[in-house]
Amino acid sequence: MGMATAEDTARFSTDVYAHRLREAAAGAAAAGLSGLIITPGYDLRYLTGSRAQTFERLTALVLPADGSTPTVVVPRLELAALRESAVPELGVTVRDWVDGEDPYALVAAALGAGAVTGDRPATAVTDSMPALHLLPLADVLGRVPVLATEVLRRLRMIKDESEMDALRKAGAAIDRVHARVPGFLVPGRTEAEVAADIAEAIVAEGHSEVAFIIVGSGPNGADPHHECSDRVLCAGDIVVVDIGGPYAPGYNSDSTRTYSLGEPDAEVARQYAVLQRAQAAAVAAVRPGISAESVDAVARDVLAAEGLAEVFVHRTGHGIGLSVHEEPYIVTGNEITLEPGMAFSVEPGVYFAGKWGARIEDIVIVTEDGVESVNNRPHELVIVPV
Amino acid sequence: MGMATAEDTARFSTDVYAHRLREAAAGAAAAGLSGLIITPGYDLRYLTGSRAQTFERLTALVLPADGSTPTVVVPRLELAALRESAVPELGVTVRDWVDGEDPYALVAAALGAGAVTGDRPATAVTDSMPALHLLPLADVLGRVPVLATEVLRRLRMIKDESEMDALRKAGAAIDRVHARVPGFLVPGRTEAEVAADIAEAIVAEGHSEVAFIIVGSGPNGADPHHECSDRVLCAGDIVVVDIGGPYAPGYNSDSTRTYSLGEPDAEVARQYAVLQRAQAAAVAAVRPGISAESVDAVARDVLAAEGLAEVFVHRTGHGIGLSVHEEPYIVTGNEITLEPGMAFSVEPGVYFAGKWGARIEDIVIVTEDGVESVNNRPHELVIVPV
Repeated sequence: MGMATAEDTARFSTDVYAHRLREAAAGAAAAGLSGLIITPGYDLRYLTGSRAQTFERLTALVLPADGSTPTVVVPRLELAALRESAVPELGVTVRDWVDGEDPYALVAAALGAGAVTGDRPATAVTDSMPALHLLPLADVLGRVPVLATEVLRRLRMIKDESEMDALRKAGAAIDRVHARVPGFLVPGRTEAEVAADIAEAIVAEGHSEVAFIIVGSGPNGADPHHECSDRVLCAGDIVVVDIGGPYAPGYNSDSTRTYSLGEPDAEVARQYAVLQRAQAAAVAAVRPGISAESVDAVARDVLAAEGLAEVFVHRTGHGIGLSVHEEPYIVTGNEITLEPGMAFSVEPGVYFAGKWGARIEDIVIVTEDGVESVNNRPHELVIVPV
Repeated sequence: MGMATAEDTARFSTDVYAHRLREAAAGAAAAGLSGLIITPGYDLRYLTGSRAQTFERLTALVLPADGSTPTVVVPRLELAALRESAVPELGVTVRDWVDGEDPYALVAAALGAGAVTGDRPATAVTDSMPALHLLPLADVLGRVPVLATEVLRRLRMIKDESEMDALRKAGAAIDRVHARVPGFLVPGRTEAEVAADIAEAIVAEGHSEVAFIIVGSGPNGADPHHECSDRVLCAGDIVVVDIGGPYAPGYNSDSTRTYSLGEPDAEVARQYAVLQRAQAAAVAAVRPGISAESVDAVARDVLAAEGLAEVFVHRTGHGIGLSVHEEPYIVTGNEITLEPGMAFSVEPGVYFAGKWGARIEDIVIVTEDGVESVNNRPHELVIVPV
């Protein structure tokens, strides 16, 4: 529960969701599944625009693979919240239930008889479905479900024009925040104080909320998952600032720049320059037809050539959209082929434990013949006069 | 990800968690389980003080039922965050993993050979474990897990002294917010504007954050799950204000009072008086040895005697602690016997569609011989001069 604002409830037109529902059902059919069961989370929001967050009482979209009418099973108390989604305009069946009814039986019924009799084709569930609902559903269906990830992956990975536009707006907004960051980085202030200013700027620049703020100064910059602390900034610090949040209708920004409080020493400058080359090379390598892992390899190879392989301790990137981390992951072992419309981060980093770290991150979109970056702040180490 | 503050990372002493781990393992053994697998969520926080929120990469506490050393399986990048929990002081095995390793195999190994060979006793998982992890775990374990809810229910339901103290502090804090609410309820302001003031007051009165704010004025008060809107308050409105949030070290407040902008009409006053009697009777009925559903029945019977059964559309209450909604639920069909240390809401309401609604909610704790309310604001309809 929270405060709903106009921006929080923004969604695309109903046609967009109707198309997605048809595509998802067709994908389920092609995969030989009886259908999809989608509880609240990013998949439900992608398919219907619903931001439902019910946990204990089951809310579920049931999408039969045979193309028959989908059903939304929903606690009666949550019916009102559903009105903000596309559900009322989608022509789906809404089956509300009250305490005492068995919502799992309603899901099985909505899937059609094929789900619980005969050869029992598998049903697929959203990856966020909690055990609380998954285990009773497995009982009612007589078969353990499989993950819907495979069926929904391509749909969610390939952004349509509206989604790309949303990502561009989010990118421009976080660029405006980075433009203001040097003013916040004053020696004597704590990381937490800087983060509070950044939080305000993230919202002021148009995001509907803050998703994450990393201000990693000095040795804290060497921990890629550091958030922020009471450490006081000092002249000479290198500071990693990795920030983002959702922008209406909910697509996320995520961008990192690294700042130096005063002129960096020669060794830092040298290593940062290698990182900058690695990031630029990886972005430049992005185009349709190459694999996700090859983008990771490009960044890694540039760093390795300068002896920095060991200090690049994470993958090169992650997909982004309604969620901050989604497919495609830009990582060794991910052989998926890049296609136009895929959006992901390119964010190599170098981390020197106990000393300093640096990371450069842009969100990029694969185009018909190459790549478009939604983040366009300069990539150089940003020197803040002290 | 977010901004960590001192309050956000508060936890109980390590002894508290060591005791809980022993009790949980003993409970798993008594239930004939091989052990518990707990991914991030309230159960993990209850057992270790960890506020981990990892989703895509598996973090899991593995608690063998045979009393052998528990293991925390954790992505290497999340090791630092684990330091804020009791894990480093609990003497548990920490097994970190990097991309490319199979974390599910690590979980199976940590459970001991009994988990995957021989008669394969079932393993229990936390109710929030997402399908993304549950389905691969079921594969590796060779058996579909069951819910750990049964094993952890009693432990989590019976609050110890530290937990009761935390709930009392949270209750006193939200009482201070309700004391300020009349000043926010000015005709001409919107529900959203009032909610923004309440949000500020919730934090100012010591909560670490806002969990939920319902400001339901006039007809919006007739929807128990309404949050807030741009509706402008008018003289004569009845306004339901249901608010709460976590208070260090994370125990929640949750209290509702109903306000009248000016003198209410006679019919409203009459129906509110019945509601107030119903709520008071239900609170007074709480004591060890009676069932959860009997508390619901007491509230319902008072309303029914006055012809208001139909307009009390939800259960009487829910347990509360680290989560806002947990066991015991005060609802028809829940035959669980109340015991000292249980904490839950008593919150009957009346809802007249399109017109107005009212609800009165206190959090109460079952004592050795009766009940203690952590909320102590007056229960009368609060008349705000307009």
